[in-house]
Amino acid sequence: LKVRDLGEQGLLRLLQTFCPADVVGDDAAVLETQPGLSLVVTSDVLVDGVHFSDRTTSPADAGWRAAAVNLSDLAAMGAQPLGITLGLGLPPETPVAWVEGLYQGLVECLRAYGTVIVGGDICRSPVLTLAVTAFGQVAPGRVLRRSQAQVGDAILVTGPHGYSRAGLELLLNPDSLPPTLTHTAALIRAHQRPCPRLDVLPFLPPGRIAGMDSSDGLADAVIQICRASGVGAELWGDRIPYAHLAPLGPTGLDWALYGGEDFELVLCLAPAAAADLLQRLGPNAAIIGTIVPGANVTLIPAPASATISATPDAIPLTLERGFQHFQ
Amino acid sequence: LKVRDLGEQGLLRLLQTFCPADVVGDDAAVLETQPGLSLVVTSDVLVDGVHFSDRTTSPADAGWRAAAVNLSDLAAMGAQPLGITLGLGLPPETPVAWVEGLYQGLVECLRAYGTVIVGGDICRSPVLTLAVTAFGQVAPGRVLRRSQAQVGDAILVTGPHGYSRAGLELLLNPDSLPPTLTHTAALIRAHQRPCPRLDVLPFLPPGRIAGMDSSDGLADAVIQICRASGVGAELWGDRIPYAHLAPLGPTGLDWALYGGEDFELVLCLAPAAAADLLQRLGPNAAIIGTIVPGANVTLIPAPASATISATPDAIPLTLERGFQHFQ
Repeated sequence: LKVRDLGEQGLLRLLQTFCPADVVGDDAAVLETQPGLSLVVTSDVLVDGVHFSDRTTSPADAGWRAAAVNLSDLAAMGAQPLGITLGLGLPPETPVAWVEGLYQGLVECLRAYGTVIVGGDICRSPVLTLAVTAFGQVAPGRVLRRSQAQVGDAILVTGPHGYSRAGLELLLNPDSLPPTLTHTAALIRAHQRPCPRLDVLPFLPPGRIAGMDSSDGLADAVIQICRASGVGAELWGDRIPYAHLAPLGPTGLDWALYGGEDFELVLCLAPAAAADLLQRLGPNAAIIGTIVPGANVTLIPAPASATISATPDAIPLTLERGFQHFQ
Repeated sequence: LKVRDLGEQGLLRLLQTFCPADVVGDDAAVLETQPGLSLVVTSDVLVDGVHFSDRTTSPADAGWRAAAVNLSDLAAMGAQPLGITLGLGLPPETPVAWVEGLYQGLVECLRAYGTVIVGGDICRSPVLTLAVTAFGQVAPGRVLRRSQAQVGDAILVTGPHGYSRAGLELLLNPDSLPPTLTHTAALIRAHQRPCPRLDVLPFLPPGRIAGMDSSDGLADAVIQICRASGVGAELWGDRIPYAHLAPLGPTGLDWALYGGEDFELVLCLAPAAAADLLQRLGPNAAIIGTIVPGANVTLIPAPASATISATPDAIPLTLERGFQHFQ
């Protein structure tokens, strides 16, 4: 059965079964907000062949990832989700089962984080396109902004990095990886079912915290925070958590820094508060460096072999190494 | 200059100049809401060649329309806008000037209604795609729902219908139209620069009002309201406002009923309240019929020549005549 066979109205009826009945079916969704909280809004567009592919991503995984990417942006602002809208551009030949799979994965992720699809739009398109907008709420004093890092802050990551990149490689080129690489199922899962770190928010201490997510890579996140805050950073290579990638040698650290799509939070806060938070978050989190004066972002490798440094001029380091569209 | 030449970061910097500086640049936008109001959210996806085309739509008009479509959905819920997000899928060969034109038209429409772009996403796509999500606010007791029409209600439209369809024809096949057709600039403008009727909201009386917008056609709007409310309707052909289309004969009424994209509001409310509202809205608004028991939506033509009726089975009347995707 193709989307063409079901038609717009038939497909809408099918997809509305994935949404709360009292919210969908009018020109727009109406949601109750809590008094005193700010509204947080974020959008992502995902395109077949660019952001997902049948080679590596089932429809359910594409749906999960579409939700996770946006929930992670809410987490990166300190916000808990209220709901998402999903705009869908579909070639008429798309199997209906593909669309159902997409919605199943998407709703599965949303359910895991206590939220729902509240609306959307479907239309014909030559290429399968997902446009997700997520909205959430946060107390004004609890917003995590990129611009609030201060010299002396500890840099804390909520989990390991590089695993999503390794999972992608396992799916695309498994033979290129050493047989000593273990935890392969966990690495693939890190790529297919990333977990936005909304669970971290209740543990955050009150007071100033700078933060963003590491969706575009750990190096990118640190550089973006530093640029927005007018500070530099020193990262300690032996503290960056990527234990499962140890068999890969230097490539492990490279993927941890530049692989992207790990969807952890990168937080900058006072060292004592960071140490407290680290205890609450458990062994997967780590303090990986410190905020320093100036504008350089420097990596200090474990046994001191080489130094990668990014001066203000070297912010293109991200542009060269991170995922860039249009190029 | 192509999007490819500017790159993702360059394009983002350019597009952020169209957004309020204090809102964009973080993982998500943070907006203040007013206490006691409900949040209203709506999304649309617009695809090049499906929803707009260089033959009929300049980039600025495509931007205006993308904003207008979504603001109209807010108006159709009774909500005033807080902001929009814009997701953009772009072929790398897209001229940067096209994207700038799009944003100019979009921001022009938003400014006319006192709102702004608060965020978005850009990515590579084989086909130019716009995904707009608009959010607004409404007092809980002032929500316009489709399901609230009652027998005896007057059916009021806030303006003329069929003009957008006529404007499209003027752009595509001007020679097919009779030379007696005047107001052609106004008709083309109705297609290229439709005006969401947010201006109507302050004039709405308190109390129950059913409503939606006529973006998918006037007949569709009446049928959707009737279906959601479990009622029927009688429309009076000689009251439906489409004066500029008189030279077209029966085609004028046909386009008024089925042309679509007029973005007026179709409201059902008690006759006395409707008469008051009509006076406030001026001569372009009209009371075009009444809500009746049953499920039939019937047109009573002006000098009584023919009757178009839609029984519950005939809801496919909309499906056959209105704009349908995938078919």
